Amino acid sequence: MDKTVELYDSTLRDGAQAEGIAFSVEDKLNITKMLDRLGITYIEAGNPASNPKDIEYFKRVKNIHLSKSKICAFGSTRHRGVSISDDIGVKALLMAGTDTVAIFGKSWDLHVTKVLRTTLHENLNMIRETVAFFKAAGKEVIFDAEHFFDGYRQNSRYAMETLKAACEGGADVLCLCDTNGASYMNEIFELTCKVINRFGKRTAIHCHNDMGLAVANSMIAVDAGAVQVQGTFLGFGERCGNADLSTLLANLQLKRGINCIPEENMQLLTTVSRGIAEIANIKLPHDHPYVGSCAFAHKGGMHIDGVRKIPQSFEHISPDTVGNERKFLFSEFSGRSTVLSEIRKIDPTISKDSPQTRKVMQRIKELEHYGYQFEGAPAAVELLIRKVLGLYKPFFELEHYKIIGEQPAKDDNMSSTAVIKIKVGGKSEITAAQGDGPVHALDNALRKALSVFYPSLSDVRLIDYKVRVMEPRDATASKVRVLIETTDGKNNWSCVGVSSDVIKASWIALVDSIEYKLTMDYEKAAKKDTVK
Amino acid sequence: MDKTVELYDSTLRDGAQAEGIAFSVEDKLNITKMLDRLGITYIEAGNPASNPKDIEYFKRVKNIHLSKSKICAFGSTRHRGVSISDDIGVKALLMAGTDTVAIFGKSWDLHVTKVLRTTLHENLNMIRETVAFFKAAGKEVIFDAEHFFDGYRQNSRYAMETLKAACEGGADVLCLCDTNGASYMNEIFELTCKVINRFGKRTAIHCHNDMGLAVANSMIAVDAGAVQVQGTFLGFGERCGNADLSTLLANLQLKRGINCIPEENMQLLTTVSRGIAEIANIKLPHDHPYVGSCAFAHKGGMHIDGVRKIPQSFEHISPDTVGNERKFLFSEFSGRSTVLSEIRKIDPTISKDSPQTRKVMQRIKELEHYGYQFEGAPAAVELLIRKVLGLYKPFFELEHYKIIGEQPAKDDNMSSTAVIKIKVGGKSEITAAQGDGPVHALDNALRKALSVFYPSLSDVRLIDYKVRVMEPRDATASKVRVLIETTDGKNNWSCVGVSSDVIKASWIALVDSIEYKLTMDYEKAAKKDTVK
Repeated sequence: MDKTVELYDSTLRDGAQAEGIAFSVEDKLNITKMLDRLGITYIEAGNPASNPKDIEYFKRVKNIHLSKSKICAFGSTRHRGVSISDDIGVKALLMAGTDTVAIFGKSWDLHVTKVLRTTLHENLNMIRETVAFFKAAGKEVIFDAEHFFDGYRQNSRYAMETLKAACEGGADVLCLCDTNGASYMNEIFELTCKVINRFGKRTAIHCHNDMGLAVANSMIAVDAGAVQVQGTFLGFGERCGNADLSTLLANLQLKRGINCIPEENMQLLTTVSRGIAEIANIKLPHDHPYVGSCAFAHKGGMHIDGVRKIPQSFEHISPDTVGNERKFLFSEFSGRSTVLSEIRKIDPTISKDSPQTRKVMQRIKELEHYGYQFEGAPAAVELLIRKVLGLYKPFFELEHYKIIGEQPAKDDNMSSTAVIKIKVGGKSEITAAQGDGPVHALDNALRKALSVFYPSLSDVRLIDYKVRVMEPRDATASKVRVLIETTDGKNNWSCVGVSSDVIKASWIALVDSIEYKLTMDYEKAAKKDTVK
Repeated sequence: MDKTVELYDSTLRDGAQAEGIAFSVEDKLNITKMLDRLGITYIEAGNPASNPKDIEYFKRVKNIHLSKSKICAFGSTRHRGVSISDDIGVKALLMAGTDTVAIFGKSWDLHVTKVLRTTLHENLNMIRETVAFFKAAGKEVIFDAEHFFDGYRQNSRYAMETLKAACEGGADVLCLCDTNGASYMNEIFELTCKVINRFGKRTAIHCHNDMGLAVANSMIAVDAGAVQVQGTFLGFGERCGNADLSTLLANLQLKRGINCIPEENMQLLTTVSRGIAEIANIKLPHDHPYVGSCAFAHKGGMHIDGVRKIPQSFEHISPDTVGNERKFLFSEFSGRSTVLSEIRKIDPTISKDSPQTRKVMQRIKELEHYGYQFEGAPAAVELLIRKVLGLYKPFFELEHYKIIGEQPAKDDNMSSTAVIKIKVGGKSEITAAQGDGPVHALDNALRKALSVFYPSLSDVRLIDYKVRVMEPRDATASKVRVLIETTDGKNNWSCVGVSSDVIKASWIALVDSIEYKLTMDYEKAAKKDTVK
């Protein structure tokens, strides 16, 4: 691979413009770490002038060691008629303290006169002075020429003058934006060539998907010589979204032989994409290129037959290249080999054709049909295998629980009370605990009761709790899937529960997570005994 | 418009290969009528040899009067080593009784030898004879050259020979299929040109979306001279789906000036697309180009300001061209002007600088900071404005509620019981209801108690319920945001609640949704009184 393209991710800034997305500072820091791990060159993380949360982010991200990614703050040119040193937006951007800034300015005369309501001349000053200010402050400056293509269509000379002003200010990168997603591939190609020929700068492309062409247009710009591609993971963004960086990354590196991320990281693509979707709480479409759960799923009989004979017959790449996997729909469960390898970790004597393998597969299928999803929950799979194989030792029995929630609450942070009675080896324990909500109360009560018998549970605590409503059409009686992540300070594990009752779904996941911990402790102790 | 392109819709055939899609015959007939109303040229409706449901469809569709669309049946070339008159697939295809048939054959030598396991020579005979058979039967024949592009890449000479065999059989249309979605735009362009130059036939393109390029590749093929475009509505299809015909239709006709459907039908595009999604029971993504609910939604403050001044500033077409509409989303990004226009709907005398505007803005900001999100919930905003402006009449008071959940449950589908006491104008009402989970029970109890005073509430029901956990690191004590959508059979509205207790968050949203309904009823009655 000789050619290199810088990927510039704006999931945290432009992606947050999508309906339904509102990242907390914690969310943003987590996504930053994921993108760095994948090897994305730039992370455009927010606009400090428009959002107080972003100011906190820029402070906190300095304490995170990033091995690959550069953090970039985004802001506009100075306001019209304001001196650069008095502009609050410019000040906020400087305060973000990043080495790189992206400055967007207007390249469409209509926006200058009708939206900003200033003169064409003043807009050029705003661009030139703002870029120059940040260059003087020692920053790398990317100039985002907003509406460059729309502007060029209407007033080509002026659109080019805005780029010239940015170059006069000393911009390092000229980014051509198809802000309205209105441009067709031939325009993108021709104008990208023209800009590179005229200014000789590093040139970037930033596309939107209003015509469903954002990925194609971005690739065409690279064909024309662009060396930086801006986009968002999974294409999140205002209106119809931005160019989908997850797809672009795979297309550029795997199909066009262009170096974007370290080659060995490509297999993280699916995990990172799904992780970001999870944090954004957006359901990743099954059919999303490369990373969707059906991107390599085969349903047609002839397709399944073909893939069984030769995978490439209906697969454009091997799914594991991007960390995804093949699936056969309406036929045998796909992950047989994955499941088998899990089974063998517990009992190495079991083979592909053992009746136990069939039983485990069948149980997984049933649960998946019911709404379970084990992708994020290997601990749950391990427990399930042990139970099906008869290798599970029960640690306790539930006699009953009762939960009482009330409003007005006596204590505002403790609106629920759980009473629980369990039995361990013939001995019963009844106890109660309060919590902020029914699941919290139940979790507290269960661990309180069990700690009497299993002191190691006192180190266990939940660190993540996710609820997903699965069939929203039935409103409050719809099924929910609860995923919880637990830690004992050394290891983390995740379990899952599904029910139409959120408390019951949580209960299933809670119990699994505790049973998993106790099983692991038991196994460890048994091993020690054997060694003795 | 001089140039015309035929649209060939395969939603009912290739679209049905998508995960989660299974059309009944009735579904197929309904979609057929929708596509005809829109003016789609061809409807590929099924493969009678592989699916008995399709046989019934082809019988029943003959009784429907179609004004624009031609129905096409899909099938393969005859099997290897079988005489054409004995081939069951060929017989089934003939029995479908359509004027047009699509015959797919293998253009990739690998598929011929390794998947079909026959000779390259026999495959050419299969193609030639099958096409000739249907031509002799008086049909229009479209030859689908499966894997044409992949095949050409590996054995260009043989791929071209398969097209030649189809031409010798008398094929009317040569359709070039990028079956694996593995081809890049320049390949599509060059090979489409080459085929048109060599055979001079009507040439079609059929793309898949594994690289996110199906729409772009289809358009490039049209640039190269293809006169027929195959796709599916909303891009449904195996793996990552097919070329999205809804997007292609708008791109070709509105952006490239190519005639595809009667001009006056373009505004049906959104309705037809959403109707098909509804029948397929697939949630249409908000950000789908042209037809998604957010395709023309604006969230960023500057975008909203721009669109208010001049719509084209951030809209590539006017949303009503395709029957969609503009939307302003409320968010931490959106400015004063959006809020003001909502305030003015209630009290037109209030201006941008009124103290009330400041108070409303402040309240929205506080709530957003707490975790509320109003972009999906305009009813919640309206209620909030009324409350801040002192224009809200309270309809009831909560005295208290208690919720009891228990396991084991006496009735498996009714694990929770809610007791509620409310007060309306001095009169108290206490009641209880069961539900599948605590929120369900509470919803049932609240509406039961209130219906005593407000009978119109008996028509009200929840149609959507979403839970989002916001700070998952705090595990079960994290804050949750609940969004509920309610209907009274005529109108739908959404409300939102945030709390660390899922029941309390649901309660807030439930109460808001009921208060909204009662306020609207009250306003309507008051208006009537004024008219009197």
